[in-house]
Amino acid sequence: MAGFSADDRLRVTYRLLCGEGETPQDKATDIAYEQTVELPPACVGDSITERVVGRVESVEPGTARGWDAVISYGPEWVGADAAQLANLLFGNISLKKGILLTDVEWPPTLLEAFGGPAHGIAGLRSLAAAPGNRPLLCAALKPVGLSADELGELCHRFAGGGIDLIKDDHGLTDQPSAPFDERVRRCSEAVARANDSTGGNTLYFPNVTGPAASLDRRLRICVEAGCKGVLVSPLLAGLDSLQAVGKESGLAVLAHPALSGAFFGASHGIVPEILLGDIFRVLGADGVIYPNVGGRFPFDDRICRAINDRLRGDLGKVKTAFPVPGGGIDVKIVPHWLGLYGPDTILLIGGNLYSQDDLTRATRRLVDTVAQRAG
Amino acid sequence: MAGFSADDRLRVTYRLLCGEGETPQDKATDIAYEQTVELPPACVGDSITERVVGRVESVEPGTARGWDAVISYGPEWVGADAAQLANLLFGNISLKKGILLTDVEWPPTLLEAFGGPAHGIAGLRSLAAAPGNRPLLCAALKPVGLSADELGELCHRFAGGGIDLIKDDHGLTDQPSAPFDERVRRCSEAVARANDSTGGNTLYFPNVTGPAASLDRRLRICVEAGCKGVLVSPLLAGLDSLQAVGKESGLAVLAHPALSGAFFGASHGIVPEILLGDIFRVLGADGVIYPNVGGRFPFDDRICRAINDRLRGDLGKVKTAFPVPGGGIDVKIVPHWLGLYGPDTILLIGGNLYSQDDLTRATRRLVDTVAQRAG
Repeated sequence: MAGFSADDRLRVTYRLLCGEGETPQDKATDIAYEQTVELPPACVGDSITERVVGRVESVEPGTARGWDAVISYGPEWVGADAAQLANLLFGNISLKKGILLTDVEWPPTLLEAFGGPAHGIAGLRSLAAAPGNRPLLCAALKPVGLSADELGELCHRFAGGGIDLIKDDHGLTDQPSAPFDERVRRCSEAVARANDSTGGNTLYFPNVTGPAASLDRRLRICVEAGCKGVLVSPLLAGLDSLQAVGKESGLAVLAHPALSGAFFGASHGIVPEILLGDIFRVLGADGVIYPNVGGRFPFDDRICRAINDRLRGDLGKVKTAFPVPGGGIDVKIVPHWLGLYGPDTILLIGGNLYSQDDLTRATRRLVDTVAQRAG
Repeated sequence: MAGFSADDRLRVTYRLLCGEGETPQDKATDIAYEQTVELPPACVGDSITERVVGRVESVEPGTARGWDAVISYGPEWVGADAAQLANLLFGNISLKKGILLTDVEWPPTLLEAFGGPAHGIAGLRSLAAAPGNRPLLCAALKPVGLSADELGELCHRFAGGGIDLIKDDHGLTDQPSAPFDERVRRCSEAVARANDSTGGNTLYFPNVTGPAASLDRRLRICVEAGCKGVLVSPLLAGLDSLQAVGKESGLAVLAHPALSGAFFGASHGIVPEILLGDIFRVLGADGVIYPNVGGRFPFDDRICRAINDRLRGDLGKVKTAFPVPGGGIDVKIVPHWLGLYGPDTILLIGGNLYSQDDLTRATRRLVDTVAQRAG
C-alpha cells in the first residue's frame, strides 16, 4: 500500500500481461507515451519528453504472473480535474489489453488539489451523533416505484428503529412515481418526526445522481430539507460529482459503486481498492459503498479488507473515509462483520431488513445488537 | 441489429455465462430484479413487480457459448437521465460476473427523451461544407505541453493543408501550458487566418471535457471563438455531458472513447457497438471516435463494422452519427479505409501526419488523395 509520493509525482503501478511479441519494457514505454502525448517517441521533442511524457521508473517481475511497471506523471497535467485524472490513469489504455492498475502513490499537489472528504470518518460520525466505539448502521430506501409518501413511511419506520443513516436506493432519481423534490421533503419530514418522538438522530441521505445541470438545485433542496449528506454514483454522474457535492454544498457524500465493476477485470482494469478506495476517497467521498464478501456479489475477503485499508489509511492531510460494506448483508451475522471490520465502518443493510415483518422492530433489534456488542 | 422496440419497452439482450450452480433462467431473473428493485422477489408486492421489475422476455442458448437473455424495462424508470440509463443497463450487475450486454432495442419514448445527435451526419457534413461523395478528414491537435501559440501554429498548418476538422487531443484540458480560453482563441484565430488565405473551411473542435461546473462557460468560449463543434469524453465527464453540449450550445459534438475499454471484457461488460455505437449516438454524439482495426488498439474488423452499422443504422427520428475511426491510421492506406468504410465516415489521422516533415504539405497530399478517390 503506497500512499504518498515523495517527489511530487503521481506514481502508478500497472501489472502488465504481455502478448505475443510484446516485452514488458516496451509495453511500459508505450503506456507512458499513450497516456500523455499520444505520439510515437520520434515525433516528440526533448522538452516535451522531459516535461510531459510519463517516466518508466521501474519494470520488474510481479508477484503474480506478469510484470509490475511503475510509471510516474507530473501532477500539473491533471490539475484539479477529476476527468483528466481518470484519463491520465487509464483513459486510452483502457482500450488496450493486459494492463491492470494496481497501485497509486499520490503527490502532495494532487492530494491538495482534490482535497479528499470534507467530513471524513470523524466528521460523519459526529453528524450522526454516534459514539466512537461502534460502526454506523445504514438502511437502503427502496424500491423505486413506491410513492414519496410510501418511501416517507419506510423512512419513518427505519428512523423509529433508531438506524443511523437511511440512504436512497441509487436507482431512485426523479421518476414520476416519486419526484426528487417531493421525495426528499417527505422523507426528511418523516425522519424528523421519528427523531422527535424517539429522541434519535437518524440522517437521511437522498440520491442526487443525475444530470450535472440539476445537481446544484438538488443539493439546495437537500439542504433546505435539513439533510446532512447525499448519495452519488460517481461513475454514472461523472467523477467530478464527488468534488462538486463536497465543495458546493458542504453536505457529506456517500459514493455508490454502480458501473464500477466494469473496471474489475482479472488482468485488465483498475483493482477495486484503488478505484473505490483511493480514487473515490481522494475525490471527496466521506464513505464508499462496496459489495461485501458473502453477499450477492463476488468480492472476496481480501478485496474487502484492501478497500477498508485504503479508505482508512494515512494520506497526509486527506481525511479518512468510511468503508460501507453492503450488497446483501444478513442481519443475523452483523456481529461477525462488526468484529472483523471494527467500529470505523458503516454497515449497509439493504433487503435483509425488508424481509422481516415489522421494519421498526427489526431495525431496533439490529441497532441494539450493535450497541450491546460495542458495549 | 435490433433498433426499435415496438411496445415502448427498453429491450436489452445480455449474454450470460453461468457459473457453478447458476441456471440461465435464474441468472436472468436475478438481473431483472437487481437492475430495478434491488430486492428479492419475496419482498416485492404485485404492483411493483408488474410495474417496475424487469421482465425476462426470453432465455435461449446463444450462438457463442452461453445464453442470450432478453430483459425488458419500462422507459419511465429512466426518464431523460443518462446516468440512470447507464445504471439500468449495467449499474449493479457490472459488479457481478459473466454478463455481457450485446444488444438494445430502444423504445420511442427513450429515443425522444434523449433525442440523439443535434446535427448528425448530414448536419456535420454541411457545417464542414464537404461534398457528400467523400469522407471527412480530421486531424488531432497535440501533444499536451505545447503552448497555446504552438498549438495555434499547428492548427494553422493543418488548416493550410485543407483538412476538414481539427480536434483537440482529449488530454488537452486547462493545463497551465495552454489554458482553455487562450488555447481556444489562439487556435480558432489560426484556423480562421488559414481559411481566409486558402478559401477553405477547416473547423476547430476544442476539448471541453472537464468539471461539469465549467462546461457552460467553456461552451460559451467556444461559441464566441466561432467554433461549430467540440470534443467530449462522456465516460470521463459523465454520460449526460453529450446531451448537455447538444442541448445547451447547439454545437456539434464528437465523442471520445477514453475509459470505454474497461467495458469491453470478452464475457462481461458492454460490447463496443452498443456502448460507442448505440448509447453514445442516442445520447447525442454527432460523431464517435473509436480505435480502428490495424492501429495501436486491438479492435478487430468485425467490431469496427458493427460500430459503423450502429451509428448509421435506422433509429427512427434519431439522426445518424459519423463513425470516426482513428488510433493510428496510416496515411498511406487511407484509400483502403475509404473504400471499406464509404463516404459517411470521418477518418481521424493522428500521429501519422506529425511524423512527416512538412505538416501543411502532408495534410494537403492526404486531402487531395481523398478528393481524387471520391471524384
